[in-house]
Amino acid sequence: MKRYKILIEYDGTPFVGWQKQENGLSVQECLENSIFKLFQEQVAVSGAGRTDTGVHAMGQVGHFDIKSKYLDPQTITNGLNNYLRPNPISIIKTEEVNKSFHARFSAKERKYLYRIINRQSPLTFEKRRAWHVYKDLDVGKMIECIPLIEGKHDFTTFRSAHCQSDSPLKTLKEIKITKDKEDVYFGFIAQSFLHHQVRSIVGSLKLVGEKTWLPQDIKEALESKDRSKCGALAPPDGLYFMEVKY
Amino acid sequence: MKRYKILIEYDGTPFVGWQKQENGLSVQECLENSIFKLFQEQVAVSGAGRTDTGVHAMGQVGHFDIKSKYLDPQTITNGLNNYLRPNPISIIKTEEVNKSFHARFSAKERKYLYRIINRQSPLTFEKRRAWHVYKDLDVGKMIECIPLIEGKHDFTTFRSAHCQSDSPLKTLKEIKITKDKEDVYFGFIAQSFLHHQVRSIVGSLKLVGEKTWLPQDIKEALESKDRSKCGALAPPDGLYFMEVKY
Repeated sequence: MKRYKILIEYDGTPFVGWQKQENGLSVQECLENSIFKLFQEQVAVSGAGRTDTGVHAMGQVGHFDIKSKYLDPQTITNGLNNYLRPNPISIIKTEEVNKSFHARFSAKERKYLYRIINRQSPLTFEKRRAWHVYKDLDVGKMIECIPLIEGKHDFTTFRSAHCQSDSPLKTLKEIKITKDKEDVYFGFIAQSFLHHQVRSIVGSLKLVGEKTWLPQDIKEALESKDRSKCGALAPPDGLYFMEVKY
Repeated sequence: MKRYKILIEYDGTPFVGWQKQENGLSVQECLENSIFKLFQEQVAVSGAGRTDTGVHAMGQVGHFDIKSKYLDPQTITNGLNNYLRPNPISIIKTEEVNKSFHARFSAKERKYLYRIINRQSPLTFEKRRAWHVYKDLDVGKMIECIPLIEGKHDFTTFRSAHCQSDSPLKTLKEIKITKDKEDVYFGFIAQSFLHHQVRSIVGSLKLVGEKTWLPQDIKEALESKDRSKCGALAPPDGLYFMEVKY
């Protein structure tokens, strides 16, 4: 048996998300189907992060085990990419890994990017690939919130009601907010995230940016440990799963 | 009568190009239809550049005249954007201009960007928005060609057989080639361009990058003034009309 680690990029728009579901096409299902076509072997692919419907990935990582036949990593990359067409999923790299490697459980650090386009005109190229915010955002005010959210906290406020994590305690190692013309980028690094954590935080930061909230309101929302105090969830369109470190 | 200048962004994928045609939807037609809906007036929109099928624009400029009623520029931007939905065309800005202004004939400088993504894996986000080149490109070799093409030349080699320009003489003010990871960007500045000039040059530069041609071959191709010596035309997917200066 060989275990393979794959680095995966996908445009999340047409998928019900990473995970296999009855109600539509998932990234996981596409991958498992293409692995079946290549190896004639039915396998389960484990992913580092279960991205939601419409969420994108530039650096999702998966692993799977093959018993039947041996193919070298480059042949696997090319073969899977061939069978993945025309779905917007691309295998960037395949590596043989040790059996102790697990895409989800071995992860030491995950990085997400959230992207807002802050302008009045409708989006063209970036439609469904960024959150289109019309109101002028004060990025300085959002940056003021960073030290209030970074670090170890009970993130109950910024967590989906359906989150399956045992504990609401998480450590946000780093948050970065940068502006480049009409683009506003939010970078988040942590070992792991709660369900909807990034979108909940960005949804609340946007309220600070448009001056509906003060930075202090973010602190109070976090400290309340009350989901109902969270700003409206940011849409999936702007969320990118960027990188996993092992 | 008022003359308005509009700054336009569009994803060229679904269009037959800028210019109105019998065989499909053009950007010009979409704009004229939305102006009609807003003003109940049938007008012709002139554009700074007649982009081909599938070519994109971040900074196309158009102008049109309105006799019927007065609307302020912001109202026009919002109104046109409303009627342009769901086409991937966005009005970034509207300005009232003098009657002497002409989107095409007043242009002093035009800027085009051509984008190659140089990697083996299939494209996801950038499908139809860049030229996907598999073979490893030597960007240094392509950069060596810049002084051979910049400046005033007879560009017959790098010009469509259907080009309607009176003369094949053009002055390429500046060419810039930069690489950022797997992205290779080609920037071109000139007062005006011949039909297919940028795509012809990029198609030939790609042959240098993949070492099918030597830089010297670009020089010889240019000097031959022979269309048949041009490398295969680069696809429209990677071409962006970026900016017009007046």
